[in-house]
Amino acid sequence: MKLKISMYFILILPFFQSLAQEKQPNIIVFMVDDMGWLDTSLPFGDRVMALNRKYCTPNMERLAKEGMKFTDAYATPVCTPSRISMLTGLNAAHHRVTNWTSIIKDTPTDQPDSIFNRVDWNINGFSPVADIPHTVYATPLPQLLKDAGYFTVHVGKAHWGSQGTPGANPLNVGFMVNVAGNAIGHPQSYLGKENYGNVPGKFTYNAVQGLAEYYGTDTFLTEALTQEALKSIDQPAKAHQPFYLYLSHYAVHDPIQGDERFVQKYLDRGLEPREAKYASLIEGMDKSLGDVMDYLEENNLAENTVILFMSDNGGLSLDYARGGKSHTQNLPLKAGKGSVYEGGVREPMIVKWPHVVKEGSISNQPVIIEDFFPSILEMAGVNNPQLIQEIDGKSFVPLLKEEKYLYKDRFLVWHNPNKWTHEDGPGINFFSAIRQGKWKLVYDYRKEKLELYNLENDLGEHIDLASKEKKVTKKLAGALGEQLRKWEALMPTYKNTGKAVVWPDEIRVN
Amino acid sequence: MKLKISMYFILILPFFQSLAQEKQPNIIVFMVDDMGWLDTSLPFGDRVMALNRKYCTPNMERLAKEGMKFTDAYATPVCTPSRISMLTGLNAAHHRVTNWTSIIKDTPTDQPDSIFNRVDWNINGFSPVADIPHTVYATPLPQLLKDAGYFTVHVGKAHWGSQGTPGANPLNVGFMVNVAGNAIGHPQSYLGKENYGNVPGKFTYNAVQGLAEYYGTDTFLTEALTQEALKSIDQPAKAHQPFYLYLSHYAVHDPIQGDERFVQKYLDRGLEPREAKYASLIEGMDKSLGDVMDYLEENNLAENTVILFMSDNGGLSLDYARGGKSHTQNLPLKAGKGSVYEGGVREPMIVKWPHVVKEGSISNQPVIIEDFFPSILEMAGVNNPQLIQEIDGKSFVPLLKEEKYLYKDRFLVWHNPNKWTHEDGPGINFFSAIRQGKWKLVYDYRKEKLELYNLENDLGEHIDLASKEKKVTKKLAGALGEQLRKWEALMPTYKNTGKAVVWPDEIRVN
Repeated sequence: MKLKISMYFILILPFFQSLAQEKQPNIIVFMVDDMGWLDTSLPFGDRVMALNRKYCTPNMERLAKEGMKFTDAYATPVCTPSRISMLTGLNAAHHRVTNWTSIIKDTPTDQPDSIFNRVDWNINGFSPVADIPHTVYATPLPQLLKDAGYFTVHVGKAHWGSQGTPGANPLNVGFMVNVAGNAIGHPQSYLGKENYGNVPGKFTYNAVQGLAEYYGTDTFLTEALTQEALKSIDQPAKAHQPFYLYLSHYAVHDPIQGDERFVQKYLDRGLEPREAKYASLIEGMDKSLGDVMDYLEENNLAENTVILFMSDNGGLSLDYARGGKSHTQNLPLKAGKGSVYEGGVREPMIVKWPHVVKEGSISNQPVIIEDFFPSILEMAGVNNPQLIQEIDGKSFVPLLKEEKYLYKDRFLVWHNPNKWTHEDGPGINFFSAIRQGKWKLVYDYRKEKLELYNLENDLGEHIDLASKEKKVTKKLAGALGEQLRKWEALMPTYKNTGKAVVWPDEIRVN
Repeated sequence: MKLKISMYFILILPFFQSLAQEKQPNIIVFMVDDMGWLDTSLPFGDRVMALNRKYCTPNMERLAKEGMKFTDAYATPVCTPSRISMLTGLNAAHHRVTNWTSIIKDTPTDQPDSIFNRVDWNINGFSPVADIPHTVYATPLPQLLKDAGYFTVHVGKAHWGSQGTPGANPLNVGFMVNVAGNAIGHPQSYLGKENYGNVPGKFTYNAVQGLAEYYGTDTFLTEALTQEALKSIDQPAKAHQPFYLYLSHYAVHDPIQGDERFVQKYLDRGLEPREAKYASLIEGMDKSLGDVMDYLEENNLAENTVILFMSDNGGLSLDYARGGKSHTQNLPLKAGKGSVYEGGVREPMIVKWPHVVKEGSISNQPVIIEDFFPSILEMAGVNNPQLIQEIDGKSFVPLLKEEKYLYKDRFLVWHNPNKWTHEDGPGINFFSAIRQGKWKLVYDYRKEKLELYNLENDLGEHIDLASKEKKVTKKLAGALGEQLRKWEALMPTYKNTGKAVVWPDEIRVN
């Protein structure tokens, strides 16, 4: 009997495996931190732009050749809101983590403001457990993938919840393996020689944990995380178990430290030291992408693995850390990280899915970070999952298949009722925005003022058409107001009156 | 066709699962750090002794009722050697990691000595990669279990290799999941309120990583590790994949900090504060064992799970950390951690294996830490594995099955050619020992002198019979010399002459 069953097993198992593989591709989310739309030699615009010539990302080019490039992909202006949107399928206005979360529990990260009160946002981030104060409670994506049979691996930056809360631990959101992820939002150091910050007398909470193997070595953080990621998927790959790898690089968030493997090239090109270092962080990240792609090819996994490349917000454009004048680092896009203008939210996104996505294809359809949630579930064959939350994201799988896009009239919404930086900048601190098709409306809460841009011929958002295109302005203001009300979005309130700012559709359009 | 296959799958899968489960039990090694043979209310001796009355370990009693208690189980005198013996199946004299490894690479931990040179031991510990200086290169146990289909989980203390070497990372020794393990040998703090040591300005390398979820909470380290361990095996358990859990507590190593859940009871009993804290560390560890057993029962896993309870060396008996006079903490056993006398090496060991091990059974056969390697492989059904090393351990599975013991005449060897503490103590610094049956021979390198004890009626090693039982002494000295030569064991050399101490069988027995 035993032998007979074993024989059945041998005969039938490959069928199941191939079926299972067909149904459940491996999925890799290759997430970059603070990477702008133009921080790559791969042009996401309609032409090669000046900044594209500054950076070297041959592996992003390679990935785009093998998959689909999204020219109009969006995240939120800062990291935690984006990351929680991907985790939950919720828009930031809805999950109410509208700013980055502090490492320290119960600590708002908002800068003080003389005009507005601080809104009561979910300062502790995401929680997979109910009733944790100041958190959004929802069903996280990796949990659903794990339940569907995926081997789920987290490597790198998590930043979903503060220390002392369940959301600080990737193992609580459905990951089976966690390397180096917790409550921190950036590394204290990228350098193995500096133990990634784990040095007595110099330690801060941003020291990256879990990498003692590399202490004192020349291993740059990006490289260490890549090696750990490939280590972690080796076993499920061998066992033909589908895996979900969330490889979430700390790069290219500041501190802008040079990756010695690449930095000299950029100095030789005449880049100022800070920008040469930044470019080396970018290229180190790109090398990681290439290593992942090589690994997949060498292990015959490439054909059954989806790779999704994404960043969590626009490139940093503040001159405390970046070279050049503030807000020139994402040109022709306006502003950078923290802003609702394109420089703060438009992202380099690529999806490779062999046999599904046409090689070298391009989609100009707008998509947004919360769309990853239903898209990845659809890729994994998880239908009608039981969820705590009602999601806002829409699957972009139909786009990948170049089917008729179902969400043509869809509104994309950004909501940032917080003071992110000490000094206001373009689109930074107390802004909302909405996009439909080519039109983008920006709501400036300080001025209680609307701006309208036509992205089709004004990508840089220079020409405010709010007065000229009153009908469009009213339509978008109405849609934004309706959506924010529906989500019961947090609105800034005035310190002197205690009253909230007016809804966007309450502003008179002249 | 698809439906038909799916139906086969549904019908046949449970058969395979039950077969697989029968062949591959889940295996949990519940490892305690620095726990002595008497640090428990479960008597491992032939009667309840005074120290057994000091401690409360109801779950160890419960485990022993459900499995087999080993009265004569041994480890090495200090932790890293034991841990590497379990990992590799090698005796410490053979793997040459004869002392604890420093967190910092290339750093011997030996105290300076005026008489002897430092031996050239493997100061960087174990390495799964060849040609790493000062390491022992061997095939590690978890790798073999992973290759055999086990889901392998490491939680807690690893301490196999120094920072900056591959052995510092449990993912490199065959674990698929790692929580909190790296190069450190003890925690900076057991307290969640102190972030287990991760506090700017107070950080040392002994801060425990990977537990940000619990920072600032009342969660004692032992509790946090238990929760992480159960989290980590939940998915393989649900998926009917056999798991290997190495739950390696930092407890009860110093710093001796009180576990607030238990400490008051011991203070009320009149224990001095240090000893009350120590007893609370013990009871917290025992609670963890109970939680693991409860989890297995609640999830219908208990029947197919082996639990092996073990400690890595004897209880600490130095009065800088423990209450009372030095070397009284393991009475009636002589000395404690660091010593080749029974107090330093005899361990509380229990094995539960439902349907294999008779409930409430006792084995008096001597076993030693390297025996875990072949025993666990045998339990997992891994036969004739390809190994880099030639192992020294013998499987104790025949003992568990109460079959005729095949290793009756076996010699157990301890070899400690190092200076562990600044001040010599009984059996501490520069000693070897060998046991066969009731006889134990101790070789004191400082004095180039042999001692012989009859453990059957002199457990405390008080009466040196070396002169009286010359034949036995010569036999054991010969066996020890032969074995140490075979392993090319490191022998202390004199500073003044450069010559090595004499082999034990070269000493004249008067």
